Amino acid sequence: APSKSHNYRIASIPADGIGPEVVSAAIEVVNKLAQTMKTFKIEFTHIPWGTDYYKKHGRYVDENVLDVLRGYDASLFGSVGAPDVPDHISLWGLLLAIRGPLQLYANVRPVRTFPGTQSPLRSAKASDIDWLLVRENSEGEYAGHGGRSHVGQPWETATEVAIFTRVGIERIMRFAFTAASTRPKRHLTVVTKSNSLRYGLVLWDEIALSVSKDFPSVTWDKMLVDAMTIRMVQNPASLDVIVGTNLHMDILSDLAAALAGSIGVAPSSNLDPTRKNPSLFEPVHGSAFDITGKGVANPVATFWSAAEMLGWLGEEEAKEKLMRAVENVCEKGILTKDLGGTAMTKDVTKAVCDEIERLG
Amino acid sequence: APSKSHNYRIASIPADGIGPEVVSAAIEVVNKLAQTMKTFKIEFTHIPWGTDYYKKHGRYVDENVLDVLRGYDASLFGSVGAPDVPDHISLWGLLLAIRGPLQLYANVRPVRTFPGTQSPLRSAKASDIDWLLVRENSEGEYAGHGGRSHVGQPWETATEVAIFTRVGIERIMRFAFTAASTRPKRHLTVVTKSNSLRYGLVLWDEIALSVSKDFPSVTWDKMLVDAMTIRMVQNPASLDVIVGTNLHMDILSDLAAALAGSIGVAPSSNLDPTRKNPSLFEPVHGSAFDITGKGVANPVATFWSAAEMLGWLGEEEAKEKLMRAVENVCEKGILTKDLGGTAMTKDVTKAVCDEIERLG
Ligand SMILES: CC(C)[C@H](C(=O)O)[C@@H](O)C(=O)O
Ligand SMILES: CC(C)[C@H](C(=O)O)[C@@H](O)C(=O)O
Repeated sequence: APSKSHNYRIASIPADGIGPEVVSAAIEVVNKLAQTMKTFKIEFTHIPWGTDYYKKHGRYVDENVLDVLRGYDASLFGSVGAPDVPDHISLWGLLLAIRGPLQLYANVRPVRTFPGTQSPLRSAKASDIDWLLVRENSEGEYAGHGGRSHVGQPWETATEVAIFTRVGIERIMRFAFTAASTRPKRHLTVVTKSNSLRYGLVLWDEIALSVSKDFPSVTWDKMLVDAMTIRMVQNPASLDVIVGTNLHMDILSDLAAALAGSIGVAPSSNLDPTRKNPSLFEPVHGSAFDITGKGVANPVATFWSAAEMLGWLGEEEAKEKLMRAVENVCEKGILTKDLGGTAMTKDVTKAVCDEIERLG
Repeated sequence: APSKSHNYRIASIPADGIGPEVVSAAIEVVNKLAQTMKTFKIEFTHIPWGTDYYKKHGRYVDENVLDVLRGYDASLFGSVGAPDVPDHISLWGLLLAIRGPLQLYANVRPVRTFPGTQSPLRSAKASDIDWLLVRENSEGEYAGHGGRSHVGQPWETATEVAIFTRVGIERIMRFAFTAASTRPKRHLTVVTKSNSLRYGLVLWDEIALSVSKDFPSVTWDKMLVDAMTIRMVQNPASLDVIVGTNLHMDILSDLAAALAGSIGVAPSSNLDPTRKNPSLFEPVHGSAFDITGKGVANPVATFWSAAEMLGWLGEEEAKEKLMRAVENVCEKGILTKDLGGTAMTKDVTKAVCDEIERLG
């Protein structure tokens, strides 16, 4: 259960690219919120993991990465990846070295058409897209197994081995059904591909069916991942909560954000629903080296991620206030370039701080 | 090389659901084309594989399925899958028992906004979406490997093993670069996910780079499959030919058809570019049992697939004429329900036959 002390220690891991810009903006905003509301205290500790750290120490994180993180109530993460390091080195070195090993098995991604943005879909009303994407975050295609044989030979063969466990599927399925049961529509769509993937994805189907029996208040349906993309485009209002494998939801969550019209605002929570380990919150976007250092990065995805963090810690009122402040600012048209505006990161940050003060 | 006799034997495999309705419509149209043009002869032989066959014989296809198909110049396929058989049984029993084993390694899916249809994307002009999707069709996530252990136990574990070979990747990459080199834009986008999939997908990256050197006239770029969905939504005009793995392109080709506005018209060619084995042509849509027998199925995807077949056999002029006839009919608004019209399958079929006669 969330700490009752209203006193939080947060690991801040800005890492690479625009990560430091958006994380420091989010810290500013959350500190302002704490000062204004006075209902909670929060302290951010900077952790220098990332590509610079890697270049110095030969690894992306401390050797005792999990123990370090367990010293905090949660982590706020920026983004990892640099042009001069292969992506699979940086991502497995840092982000994927935390998600699975720390059993942050639920990657939760709310997606909606945000004030100040518009869906690119001709016939979508703003209210049509209000989805909660739940991504299995600890196994599946991201188990990391596989290898290459006869490297460089004409007969070279490589494998990628996805691993699915009953435990892993059942816990994410229960999480998703539970989430669906608390929302107005009470609907869950289970994404699968059991027509071509006959083992792990058939197990997904079986477990969906059996877990569904414990949630009679939730209506649910199943979609093949390929057909799901069509439904998201053609009938967005028919969807509510969506659950699927690590890779399927990686793909669908980017599509979802694009269809909502709001890549630059998309947040994500990497949760350990058992609360044994501290959860990690991060924007969906990447390190974006093309705009790094220019001061134009959109901090809203990280603000929203920080709001989700506050909610997870039990500070529901602080979460609501932060979201209201961010939405009001976007609605006023104080938007960064990616949303068609001209505001800089610092302009949006200041506007959100002012709005927090105004809301009181 | 295509037969010079202009005399073709085609295996017709209508299979399940609306398959028989759309395949017989396509046969009617192609026969009309042959009669009118008199430049080629074509004979369709009905092959009864499918779910009824399975219920009688305990298998979806003849035991010597590959030898049977090798007796024809090509196959025209409908769709497979029935409500009372698990999808992985029917699909591996029939369609996936042909694609990989017959080495039809290039699944080619042209996607464009068809006359009579409109992109659901607010800002897309009709000409913005004109893509050629090239799907690796013989290995990868569809290798079929994997299994389940400790079935039903709390510690049950399942695997799905994707297999990538240098041969398999290199041949599809050459096919895609070659296709790109013959199009006006001469652009190829290679879809990958080598940040999280460190073996087979890194091999994809390496082979893309090495094959690209043989095609200096083609500009190319790489996209992660998740980010690719965003680009398809936000910047469709930046794309031309797209190549990726069996699963990635399965997903992206449905999305592509949805964004073009034309699921009911999407065709596909399962090609053996070495021409050792006869290629197979099929609509992208499934068996659609909900509308089976109602006479409302859209036959256009199968007409377009048949046109691709004629082109592949070397009858370029017949292909062009068939496409023109179909486009003219759609433009006139003779459309099935899925495209917002009221025409029945037979109305569209008759209109296309009339138009073929008119074109001469
Ligand atoms: C950065 C990358 C490893 C990551 C993923 O593939 O999970 C990203 O795309 C995401 O969606 O969080
Ligand atoms: C029917 C099914 C096996 C198939 C696939 O997954 O390949 C279909 O979705 C397709 O795109 O051709």
